[in-house]
Amino acid sequence: MKLLEERIRQEGLILSDTVLKVDSFLNHQVDTKLALAIGREFARLFAGEPITKVLTIEASGIQFAMAAGIALDVPFVYAKKKKAVTLTEKLYSAPVHSFTRQETYQVSISQKYLGPGDKVLIVDDFLATGAALVGLVDIVNEAGAELVGVGCVIEKSFQEGRSLLEQKGVRVHSLARIASMSPGEIHFVEDIPLIR
Amino acid sequence: MKLLEERIRQEGLILSDTVLKVDSFLNHQVDTKLALAIGREFARLFAGEPITKVLTIEASGIQFAMAAGIALDVPFVYAKKKKAVTLTEKLYSAPVHSFTRQETYQVSISQKYLGPGDKVLIVDDFLATGAALVGLVDIVNEAGAELVGVGCVIEKSFQEGRSLLEQKGVRVHSLARIASMSPGEIHFVEDIPLIR
Repeated sequence: MKLLEERIRQEGLILSDTVLKVDSFLNHQVDTKLALAIGREFARLFAGEPITKVLTIEASGIQFAMAAGIALDVPFVYAKKKKAVTLTEKLYSAPVHSFTRQETYQVSISQKYLGPGDKVLIVDDFLATGAALVGLVDIVNEAGAELVGVGCVIEKSFQEGRSLLEQKGVRVHSLARIASMSPGEIHFVEDIPLIR
Repeated sequence: MKLLEERIRQEGLILSDTVLKVDSFLNHQVDTKLALAIGREFARLFAGEPITKVLTIEASGIQFAMAAGIALDVPFVYAKKKKAVTLTEKLYSAPVHSFTRQETYQVSISQKYLGPGDKVLIVDDFLATGAALVGLVDIVNEAGAELVGVGCVIEKSFQEGRSLLEQKGVRVHSLARIASMSPGEIHFVEDIPLIR
């Protein structure tokens, strides 16, 4: 997605070879127009699939799940990282290890909102180690729902996330794929859609 | 907002005199169409104000800030509850006590995304004790930005949040105001706009 790559070049701050900061337009301050365009691009990439629900994880996936939900005209569900007092019913859960925070947390979804008959598109802001997304994929499988694919806004293609997902047979589309980066320099790879 | 009140009557689960669960359509699974309608209603209620930015707090405020941002055609910012590794610059912070979780946490916003010249609409899913919203109001004031008002999706009018905000001179609009509730029963009050 050229518009997104340009924006990353203009506003992204590369703090190290692995840390890219995009919080002026994607995940702290959010450019609502760009977020909507991202949602439309996910809908275009997965066109023809009868998606019934978008799934993401709080917090920074929510704006993109909302945008995809708008474009696809379906509801979305966001997995929670902390058990809410009101979350009293049966849950699907998966452990996720955060490498940036060096901690393992549980992601949970109420069993009421995912089940057989759902055709699910998972979206998130970043695909790096893939830990959170693998957790969501496991939850979709556990729920007996059908996984249509995973859409990510930014992929760090030099990390193992994509291959972990593809090993599970998951179709992955990322809108900006970073081949390599270092402070002051960033290189993108083209998003080559998988032949299914 | 009649549509919202009806939905709360149909799908809301009242767990006690103070706990209302709306996670089938507002804050776990999200009805994107309803969320967009909520955003338009906030835009209508604050029409005529030259809002430049919508502010909320992660996670469950994000979908409504996004919807308001879409309706107003402005970006939104969500305050973070945990310091991200990429959040390295100067922050505005406020302590917030969560009564449901019985813990105090810091909410933070990068100083880059709020400042004099901004006319801010704060939105959130619930107004109850007002703790989180008072924290956001304090941050807007600290930033030297102008606060246009606070828009909440659901207000527990039997709790002190609204009066805490109004004591600070804040204009408050809630789309569904609950006068009282108990399992199986809910009563709404009309939202009477403040004369400014």
